Amino acid sequence: ERSYTLTLLPGDGIGPEVVAVAKEVLSLTGSLEGIKFHFIEMPVGGSALDAVGVPLPDETLNTAKNSDAVLLGAIGGYKWDKNEKHLKPETGLLQLRDGLGVYANIRPAVVLPQLVDASTLKKEVAERVNLVIVRELTGGIYFGKPRGFGTNDNNEDIGFNTEKYSASEIDRIGRVGFEVARKRNGKLCSVDKANVLEASMLWRQRITMLASEYPDVELSHMYVDNAAMQLIRDPKQFDTIVTNNIFGDILSDEASMLTGSIGMLPSASIGESGPGLFEPIHGSAPDIAGQDKANPLATVLSAAMLLKYGLGEESAAKRIETAVIETLNRGFRTGDIFSSGTTLVGCKRMGEEVLKCV
Amino acid sequence: ERSYTLTLLPGDGIGPEVVAVAKEVLSLTGSLEGIKFHFIEMPVGGSALDAVGVPLPDETLNTAKNSDAVLLGAIGGYKWDKNEKHLKPETGLLQLRDGLGVYANIRPAVVLPQLVDASTLKKEVAERVNLVIVRELTGGIYFGKPRGFGTNDNNEDIGFNTEKYSASEIDRIGRVGFEVARKRNGKLCSVDKANVLEASMLWRQRITMLASEYPDVELSHMYVDNAAMQLIRDPKQFDTIVTNNIFGDILSDEASMLTGSIGMLPSASIGESGPGLFEPIHGSAPDIAGQDKANPLATVLSAAMLLKYGLGEESAAKRIETAVIETLNRGFRTGDIFSSGTTLVGCKRMGEEVLKCV
Ligand SMILES: CC(C)[C@H](C(=O)O)[C@@H](O)C(=O)O
Ligand SMILES: CC(C)[C@H](C(=O)O)[C@@H](O)C(=O)O
Repeated sequence: ERSYTLTLLPGDGIGPEVVAVAKEVLSLTGSLEGIKFHFIEMPVGGSALDAVGVPLPDETLNTAKNSDAVLLGAIGGYKWDKNEKHLKPETGLLQLRDGLGVYANIRPAVVLPQLVDASTLKKEVAERVNLVIVRELTGGIYFGKPRGFGTNDNNEDIGFNTEKYSASEIDRIGRVGFEVARKRNGKLCSVDKANVLEASMLWRQRITMLASEYPDVELSHMYVDNAAMQLIRDPKQFDTIVTNNIFGDILSDEASMLTGSIGMLPSASIGESGPGLFEPIHGSAPDIAGQDKANPLATVLSAAMLLKYGLGEESAAKRIETAVIETLNRGFRTGDIFSSGTTLVGCKRMGEEVLKCV
Repeated sequence: ERSYTLTLLPGDGIGPEVVAVAKEVLSLTGSLEGIKFHFIEMPVGGSALDAVGVPLPDETLNTAKNSDAVLLGAIGGYKWDKNEKHLKPETGLLQLRDGLGVYANIRPAVVLPQLVDASTLKKEVAERVNLVIVRELTGGIYFGKPRGFGTNDNNEDIGFNTEKYSASEIDRIGRVGFEVARKRNGKLCSVDKANVLEASMLWRQRITMLASEYPDVELSHMYVDNAAMQLIRDPKQFDTIVTNNIFGDILSDEASMLTGSIGMLPSASIGESGPGLFEPIHGSAPDIAGQDKANPLATVLSAAMLLKYGLGEESAAKRIETAVIETLNRGFRTGDIFSSGTTLVGCKRMGEEVLKCV
């Protein structure tokens, strides 16, 4: 029997509800696949701020580092929105990504045939959209120094950040992009702003150099403003997109909304070695927290990514993915993906229905 | 009789074709409204590179500065894509914006009832979308220093840029945002990434302070990743958006694509005083250049914005806007907005049809 230690970070808002469902799904899947999970739950984000005064306690980071994989719910909420930077829930998440060294964030945006009506795009544009965004996650303007506040020559307040990439940072995320594309349809689109930014010019140069190592992958380049348009004009043109941290933040949220069902979308963040971080792409949705209304499927699918990318347990991952599809086919929907003719259920009940199909 | 000097910068690709149409429309409109235009045509972008070796000749900038307003076609093309930074057509455009001090870029994204089918969004989502993005245009990461290339401690190549805003830069663009919102439906949404970036934290703080001067405007704040989603989920929630240079670049292109007809969208860039810069938001479209296929209406509508925002000639502006609507109502369409049941025309013919309605 294989055995893994998983760190669960429920976080804030709907985080605890959706992680609770994913935990049960993981347990049952494990018992059917001969895998034993040891779960350790730790605080992060606003709940950590409330409990111990920092958004990422050392103990949380150490536990995460020493485990085989990390499953996060969501962080943030109105309550902490006005906190100073080092006391923001988001800062805890950034410290966690940085602390785990998970530089590659993999975000699929898939329009399921069962949910094509949920998209605000016309059916013929939305159907069969199936793309992955590979976002650099531990560099760029999110982490670049110098950063901060100051005054300029006129003695005025200024705020500043640094967008910075080194060749090796670009190369390692570029390789993940090529590898992901290779396992899909062999098309990689690198997104940058190389007509204006030096950081992007280096990006384009390095990605172009890498291409010779992946002759089976067709590489193209696109400016970020054009990419934001093309995702709406014709999202099916994309297979795999690789881009920097801030452009990836914006484009992956845009791409996820194309599907109309961000309550369904998982993500995986992985590094060179060490545990990966898996989380739904949706936020903490404080307005519906604690009301048993959240859609747990994005977190359940994040658990499937954890099994596949984090632990190499492909068969267990497949079992979860199939159970989710089956549950949708049986007509169960949370409020965010409900349409007439389907059965409206809450977070817990959705979990129970998935468990029946595992 | 009022008289104005206008600098025409046709630029590259389809730029010359669409500017030629706008020039005729301006002339006729002027003669009907008792306005005399003196036009001076100058090179910029790739055509300036080819002619004199720099993307913004001094003479072009000086002519523009000494005129009453500037109408630009489009710049750029494959031919110059691999040029070094200081020899890129885009660099000429940035130097022009900087040289004219046009810090406020105003970009409407309006879905016309005649063209609602052109959108890839469902009809009920697209119809009646009518928003304006006010983008900061002469600051932020586009112009911030330090910038460039270098090596890090490991002797690796790096590329870097600086996102920087001062209080006064934020205040002046913020005021334009509030003023525009005040003349529309009184709703201003400021977009930033204040949960991560110090430059955005200062942005949010200053915009919030300004709000007290505009009690009639309802201010909200949104993170840029969420804005990228909300524009697709429910674009009608927006009236006026104000944001920084790079976020504005991405979001305004995204918003324009929502309309499905970027060949229709004009923009105005204005400063404290001095001539404004008016240009269609579409690019130079090198693949259809010189084939009489381009849609000149975005440039014609940019000429209307020039009259209104640049010269205060509201009645002449209105005349052009009405002529464009009339031309659409009469069923004329260029290829980009063609649908069955309408009449397909080229760039020149479209211009002739507009002239008939002026
Ligand atoms: C919460 C925030 C710091 C985070 C980010 O910007 O990376 C989020 O938007 C995301 O994409 O995971
Ligand atoms: C051509 C490029 C430099 C420019 C920009 O990024 O500002 C363009 O995308 C625009 O939005 O006008």
